[in-house]
Amino acid sequence: MTTPSEQQAPPAQATLPRTLTRDLGQHDGQRVRLQGFLHARRDLGGVQFAVLRDVSGIAQAVGSGLSLPLTESSIEIVGTVKAHPKAPGGYEVQIEDFRVLSAAREPAPVEIPKMEWNVNPETMLDYRYVSVRGLKERAALRVQAQIVRAFHEHLDAEGFTEISTPKIVSAGAEGGANLFKLDYFGEQAYLAQSPQLYKQIMVGVFERVYEVAPVYRAEEHATSRHLNEYLSLDVEMGFIESEEDVMNLQNRLLASIMGRLRERCSAEFALLGATIPDVPAHIPRIPLLEARALVTEKFGHTVGGKDLDPEAERLLSQHYAETEGSDWVFVTKYPKAARPFYAYPEGDVTRGYDLLFRGIEITSGGQRINEYDMLMQSIRDYRLNPESLAGYSEVFKFGMPPHGGFAIGAERLTAKLLGIQNVRYARAFPRDRHRLTP
Amino acid sequence: MTTPSEQQAPPAQATLPRTLTRDLGQHDGQRVRLQGFLHARRDLGGVQFAVLRDVSGIAQAVGSGLSLPLTESSIEIVGTVKAHPKAPGGYEVQIEDFRVLSAAREPAPVEIPKMEWNVNPETMLDYRYVSVRGLKERAALRVQAQIVRAFHEHLDAEGFTEISTPKIVSAGAEGGANLFKLDYFGEQAYLAQSPQLYKQIMVGVFERVYEVAPVYRAEEHATSRHLNEYLSLDVEMGFIESEEDVMNLQNRLLASIMGRLRERCSAEFALLGATIPDVPAHIPRIPLLEARALVTEKFGHTVGGKDLDPEAERLLSQHYAETEGSDWVFVTKYPKAARPFYAYPEGDVTRGYDLLFRGIEITSGGQRINEYDMLMQSIRDYRLNPESLAGYSEVFKFGMPPHGGFAIGAERLTAKLLGIQNVRYARAFPRDRHRLTP
Repeated sequence: MTTPSEQQAPPAQATLPRTLTRDLGQHDGQRVRLQGFLHARRDLGGVQFAVLRDVSGIAQAVGSGLSLPLTESSIEIVGTVKAHPKAPGGYEVQIEDFRVLSAAREPAPVEIPKMEWNVNPETMLDYRYVSVRGLKERAALRVQAQIVRAFHEHLDAEGFTEISTPKIVSAGAEGGANLFKLDYFGEQAYLAQSPQLYKQIMVGVFERVYEVAPVYRAEEHATSRHLNEYLSLDVEMGFIESEEDVMNLQNRLLASIMGRLRERCSAEFALLGATIPDVPAHIPRIPLLEARALVTEKFGHTVGGKDLDPEAERLLSQHYAETEGSDWVFVTKYPKAARPFYAYPEGDVTRGYDLLFRGIEITSGGQRINEYDMLMQSIRDYRLNPESLAGYSEVFKFGMPPHGGFAIGAERLTAKLLGIQNVRYARAFPRDRHRLTP
Repeated sequence: MTTPSEQQAPPAQATLPRTLTRDLGQHDGQRVRLQGFLHARRDLGGVQFAVLRDVSGIAQAVGSGLSLPLTESSIEIVGTVKAHPKAPGGYEVQIEDFRVLSAAREPAPVEIPKMEWNVNPETMLDYRYVSVRGLKERAALRVQAQIVRAFHEHLDAEGFTEISTPKIVSAGAEGGANLFKLDYFGEQAYLAQSPQLYKQIMVGVFERVYEVAPVYRAEEHATSRHLNEYLSLDVEMGFIESEEDVMNLQNRLLASIMGRLRERCSAEFALLGATIPDVPAHIPRIPLLEARALVTEKFGHTVGGKDLDPEAERLLSQHYAETEGSDWVFVTKYPKAARPFYAYPEGDVTRGYDLLFRGIEITSGGQRINEYDMLMQSIRDYRLNPESLAGYSEVFKFGMPPHGGFAIGAERLTAKLLGIQNVRYARAFPRDRHRLTP
């Protein structure tokens, strides 16, 4: 019979292990091997300068008699590290061997080292498959990745279980507006706006659950704070006493996230000229009606609608920054008219809240109705169709405990933290009304 | 001006902190407060037995003069812990106070403690919003959550960055088959079958990336191993020498995952009668053509097609279990005909591989083409339309380093690990040809 071939020997490794650019200082005077992309190049005739970009940063290398490829080519450099005060990071590599791993065949459509988001944002997004390599672009995405890691780790430590719920659904939790439609084997289906119902059901299983997954809003309007597809950080917890438990959890969670960013992302914040906010042990809380009165009386701003308008959000945040030094404020006790039908009622208001951060709402949360009769009453009060919500309401016949939760839009939090004006730059490949590629 | 109201006092906490059922043994003879669901009940006239289910397990409680609510009601019990050899976990709670937090208003449509997946699987899935509370059901989902946690943690430790890529796309990476169609503001769009192109692009940014997100296959056929929406654990790494680097990574990753399951999920495996497999330091590897010959010569099974058929997968796994004690085998060097156009060619075969686990393919991976000219040649060889793949091929003009990766279907791995016959029970709310709810 056939014998399996001898186990294939591992491919010949270069004897010199790879060094990351951020570690050059540990190898002063030594030979190193670098791999990365040719970020920038300069040829002064007899001498050539190459800036190599790897996952950890950039490094300058210098050699002679080299024919440098186009920028963005993948390259490998072997050379000796020398301290050099003017080089990025304080070290330079004197090139002994320069190897092209994969040559760029044409100049990049945008100059990666010189990109400015404000100059031509649409062009930058058209060429996102290359422009995303930029140092600022990737800094934003790395910060977001660390936010998500901290979200996981904090909730794991508090006994939460991660869930994965369907994004193809038969109806929207909010009643049907702004849904993308889908043909599902001949049936009408939709993309989920939120995992709301499913995370509530899963409270019946794991008591405390979270999900990190995309959600969809078919909103036609193009603003700097909305995306049609975004990453939602969703939390739901059972056996609570009130929405205070939910806000307290979010308060602790945000402190963990900012702590992790402080440990791991100071370079990224420095690059983007942003500062990591402190999170008070007790984020200020103010009922919506008092918040509306406050911005009117203190700032002379009359607030329309039932909620806070963007200017009122900005002013309220300014107030708490000035008076309590907090970049964060919970606006609580939203009236029913500004909340979905599943918000837990308390007289004329609900146990729903928003969290404002530096002038913008970054999360909605609250306690949910957990009793069937109360839910059906609310559906009638909101003049919704009980039939179309039967799939939602059914589970509440079976002893759902008091529960509540919240959702954070990952891109919006990232953008606001970093001072990025348009939330689209906080997503690798954003989708908006006019953008389905790349 | 209005002053914000005094900070609301936290709701009155019960003086007795909550105890989880799994910790009863630490409170022998003490008063405890339990919260959870009424899993089962028995009324013997003078005495009532209540089985309380919480996130950590179940506990028996006994009292008298109680009028127990319907099962699945949310309840709270205060009582004294007594050792009791016949009770689950060896302890019983003598009820002093029994409180209904939220009463079930009708009997659950399935008897949670008595459910058997095999008896009536479709009914179990119809009522999934309650049946998912079952001990075996949630054990499967908890194992999956731990697999996902280990996936994150291992890759973080190896310097990978998590990414979030679009699920609404303008074309499929595999060329267009089996795609769900979507109306995107009047344009034709699709749900992504895989993040293939996007994770490759992101190798140009972070070198090593992973994603945990749903993917979509509009496959009409209903089998026990396919889902139309599933959770894909995707990995891509740059600056590799060959697909061996990718397999070695996956080998280490699987060892980490199984190690974590051994630490955290032994109770779940015991409940489901399953064992956690060892992962060899070097999972056996055999080229596809040799694997085909082996199953023919050793087992007399003639393999059709270009790949392995399900019976050949089973026999090959049997061979490695018998001869090397390995539940895992990498089948390497797939021929082009059994691989997508982006697989890195090597003569008549590719650097693509599959990983078999206990008789079933749980992952596909390999080195990808990273050079533009080679990619265009492959597109022509596969008789695909270069125009329709222009969005894919464009990035390869810009110095993509050698790279490769793999994807693991989370539900399939979970099901196979736990001996669950139908992959739908390894997903909270599965979607199949006929199932769009709950």
